Amino acid sequence: MAGSAAMYHAMTSLGFASASPYKGPIKLNGDPKGASVLILGAGLAGMTAALELRNAGYKVQILEFNDRAGGRNWTLRGGDSFSELGGFRQTCEFESGLYINPGPWRIPYHHRALLDYCKRFGVSLEPFIQLNYNALIHSSRAFDGAPQRIRAVKADFQGQVSELLAKVTQQGKLDEAVTKEDQEVLLHALRSWGALDHDYKYKANLISAGFRGYARDPGGGLDAIPLSGDPLALSEILKSRVWRYLQNFANYNFQTTMFQPVGGMDMIGKAFAKEVGDLIRYNAKVTRIQQDDRGVTVSYVDTAGPATVQLAKADWCICTIPLSILSQLPVDVSAAMKSAIDAVPYAGSVKVGLQFKRRFWEEDEAIYGGISYTDLPIRQIAYPDSGFNRSGRGVLLGAYLFDGANAYEFTAMTPAERVARTVEFGAMIHPQYRDEFENGVAVAWHRVPFVLGCSGDWSEEARATHYRDLCQIDGRIALAGEHASALPAWQEGAILSALDAIARLHHRVMRT
Amino acid sequence: MAGSAAMYHAMTSLGFASASPYKGPIKLNGDPKGASVLILGAGLAGMTAALELRNAGYKVQILEFNDRAGGRNWTLRGGDSFSELGGFRQTCEFESGLYINPGPWRIPYHHRALLDYCKRFGVSLEPFIQLNYNALIHSSRAFDGAPQRIRAVKADFQGQVSELLAKVTQQGKLDEAVTKEDQEVLLHALRSWGALDHDYKYKANLISAGFRGYARDPGGGLDAIPLSGDPLALSEILKSRVWRYLQNFANYNFQTTMFQPVGGMDMIGKAFAKEVGDLIRYNAKVTRIQQDDRGVTVSYVDTAGPATVQLAKADWCICTIPLSILSQLPVDVSAAMKSAIDAVPYAGSVKVGLQFKRRFWEEDEAIYGGISYTDLPIRQIAYPDSGFNRSGRGVLLGAYLFDGANAYEFTAMTPAERVARTVEFGAMIHPQYRDEFENGVAVAWHRVPFVLGCSGDWSEEARATHYRDLCQIDGRIALAGEHASALPAWQEGAILSALDAIARLHHRVMRT
Repeated sequence: MAGSAAMYHAMTSLGFASASPYKGPIKLNGDPKGASVLILGAGLAGMTAALELRNAGYKVQILEFNDRAGGRNWTLRGGDSFSELGGFRQTCEFESGLYINPGPWRIPYHHRALLDYCKRFGVSLEPFIQLNYNALIHSSRAFDGAPQRIRAVKADFQGQVSELLAKVTQQGKLDEAVTKEDQEVLLHALRSWGALDHDYKYKANLISAGFRGYARDPGGGLDAIPLSGDPLALSEILKSRVWRYLQNFANYNFQTTMFQPVGGMDMIGKAFAKEVGDLIRYNAKVTRIQQDDRGVTVSYVDTAGPATVQLAKADWCICTIPLSILSQLPVDVSAAMKSAIDAVPYAGSVKVGLQFKRRFWEEDEAIYGGISYTDLPIRQIAYPDSGFNRSGRGVLLGAYLFDGANAYEFTAMTPAERVARTVEFGAMIHPQYRDEFENGVAVAWHRVPFVLGCSGDWSEEARATHYRDLCQIDGRIALAGEHASALPAWQEGAILSALDAIARLHHRVMRT
Repeated sequence: MAGSAAMYHAMTSLGFASASPYKGPIKLNGDPKGASVLILGAGLAGMTAALELRNAGYKVQILEFNDRAGGRNWTLRGGDSFSELGGFRQTCEFESGLYINPGPWRIPYHHRALLDYCKRFGVSLEPFIQLNYNALIHSSRAFDGAPQRIRAVKADFQGQVSELLAKVTQQGKLDEAVTKEDQEVLLHALRSWGALDHDYKYKANLISAGFRGYARDPGGGLDAIPLSGDPLALSEILKSRVWRYLQNFANYNFQTTMFQPVGGMDMIGKAFAKEVGDLIRYNAKVTRIQQDDRGVTVSYVDTAGPATVQLAKADWCICTIPLSILSQLPVDVSAAMKSAIDAVPYAGSVKVGLQFKRRFWEEDEAIYGGISYTDLPIRQIAYPDSGFNRSGRGVLLGAYLFDGANAYEFTAMTPAERVARTVEFGAMIHPQYRDEFENGVAVAWHRVPFVLGCSGDWSEEARATHYRDLCQIDGRIALAGEHASALPAWQEGAILSALDAIARLHHRVMRT
């Protein structure tokens, strides 16, 4: 009986799915009787809405600005060309099979809706490595500018913090806060967790080396004895401020197991497009959105054809156009929704992909995937999470800037300058850049015509004031997209917002 | 100039390769003039030696007990049969494409020799997930027997330890140990690292939820607001002793990025065998090893043929036979080496693979790969690190016992009993076992005829007394294998020991 009680607890305390707002494939019961829906934007939000509404019996049409589906779900491969605001046109020169994802590039395990669509569509996934213990943390103002292994910084910080707490525990300074009994166990736990020695010290020895790494690794045969290295002093770690990177690794959004689609993030957009591609009108630039009691009328021009305004009509509209664009269009919505549309600035972000002659990060430095962090403007270097241990060329993400002055500065440069600066900064961490670099491609999201930013950058105040207004169905129009979610910049937010919007829309249609 | 000084530091402090005893492909210069080497055992050590010695000009022959190469580098798939000591014979019934690795199953990024052979042979690698934040920690005597998410235990422990240290810092109790200036930064660091709030408290709020996970995840549309859950009390975590699992995740041997070969660990053994398979005589059970001034003579019987003793002769011998077996054979070596051979007991280990009708751990619980830990005799449940997010059947590692009474107890059972017990215990963590289990296979290493244990279990004392004697070239015989390394149970140890042995052997041959 104790067993079955325990089992009951186990079952209720698990049920992870209950933490996700996604409860499995949406069920839109009831016949919409030929009602039509016009969807603006063939990104993940728009295509999710199109797929599920058509399945439910709606007549669906999508207008899409680009000549491809997916929106920010986008992968750049050799031969791909794109233009940015200001007129610069880049053609990616990567070798076949190599790519970067300029937009979303990782999928948390708890993004249940996105994962479910991947499963339904048969999109293959592989692990995305967020934390690689052997990648680097670099501060240009600490450790004489020398990059440090993440494993060393992490172990040395955790070890010395544990040592401090063990010390005050032994000195009786925790007596008010922790019972004597718990203090004894706490000491054991700190020794285990902090890699402390028998005297609760964190030192250069084989205990700490078992976490921070060795000066010489254990080997085989006669010459097998391992040697420990010297820990970084806590004071030095504190002053370097590199501890702020440690927070990142255990973040719910970045925890193992993360995923990326095999072959590029756009495998998801392409899989959606395989389902609803027949509904999409490409190269359709929306210029006006009107509604009245009877329906919605959207004006658009064909960006690839003559500039004549064309009209699309439907009973209802799901608009997934980014607010950065939508706020510039005449749209017939309430003042409250219009205020909400105008309330959200879009974050800047720059990603630079670099191709190298060889995967020197693996060959020379045993860095397989994951991310190095730096206080240089490039901020991150992310190593490819596929093709591990192979010979030949490789592409890494040489810069990932978001927010802040550096993102603006890089956005203001020409694409060639962005790439050159990225190589220059990166060479301060990986000197091999100088000999091995071949070509690069740089996407500055504030200059990407279809979104003018990487994602909606809600302030807490703006969200408190405007979020619910943004998400209400306004007459015959509902908005969807990552901007209409509590998961800004995540694909899951786009999909969940679309599912929420169409569920409410369907409810309204069924009532009327 | 400051830049170039920094660069110099960067380059010297990196150079990870220098920490590994492996410095790239071995170079055996000089002509051995037809010298012959008999290698005993076609595991990774033996095949490494064979490959490199033949390349260097030696005449090489390998005797192997099994009817396949690889030794403990072994993968079980549907249709594979094997017998254990005591006579039990199992046939694996897994669906095509599913497998378990009864022996080694993961490759650290710092195992440079093994990774280099994988690269040379074109063995494809994929990430092995050691730490999955969403996997479980289970204590049958804590939390009412309910499994806890690793993310929650980890965040709650780290958070409350950080809170304690922040508190004593603010109370001035660190004044002797830490400068005032460092204390200020330490508080910031603890807030960041421990997910503390503005007042340095770890609480149920969206800050801690951003690490431990949410009661309700952030969503999309109107119903998007996330909810935090209640942390586990530090006292409860301490008493549960589940903190001892936390140490595992950052261990140098288990740090990201780990690997497994795509399709099974034996892809490596097969790749070696593709190179040296023509040198291997299979089903050869060694019964005696003799040497004199002129050479080595090894007696063996063909386990698949008549029991007549056959002889193999060579100038030199590399013996990779596990010490558990070798200690039972008459071997002409010095008393010192014989003592060393006799000094190493072999660790017990049991692995049980279970096939289920569906990947319920992914579908129901969002556990993709990685390992759950329990104080039940099964100790670990490891989820498959390939085929993520697919429909259909799946195989997981239902038990991984090593050392201790439970390993002996499971070894003593029949294979069918091991599987049944594994299912019974596992169902206390995953109740889905009851409906979804299909079949299983159980390898108890103490009963595996070719090794009688999973690896050499050196005590510190035995190593201090005997290790160097074991690794010396004794007359014309040198030993190799994981037992002749400081990396017991690791494939890297087997390879490095072989490289070290053949380098010394070649040196001796060149001298004579």
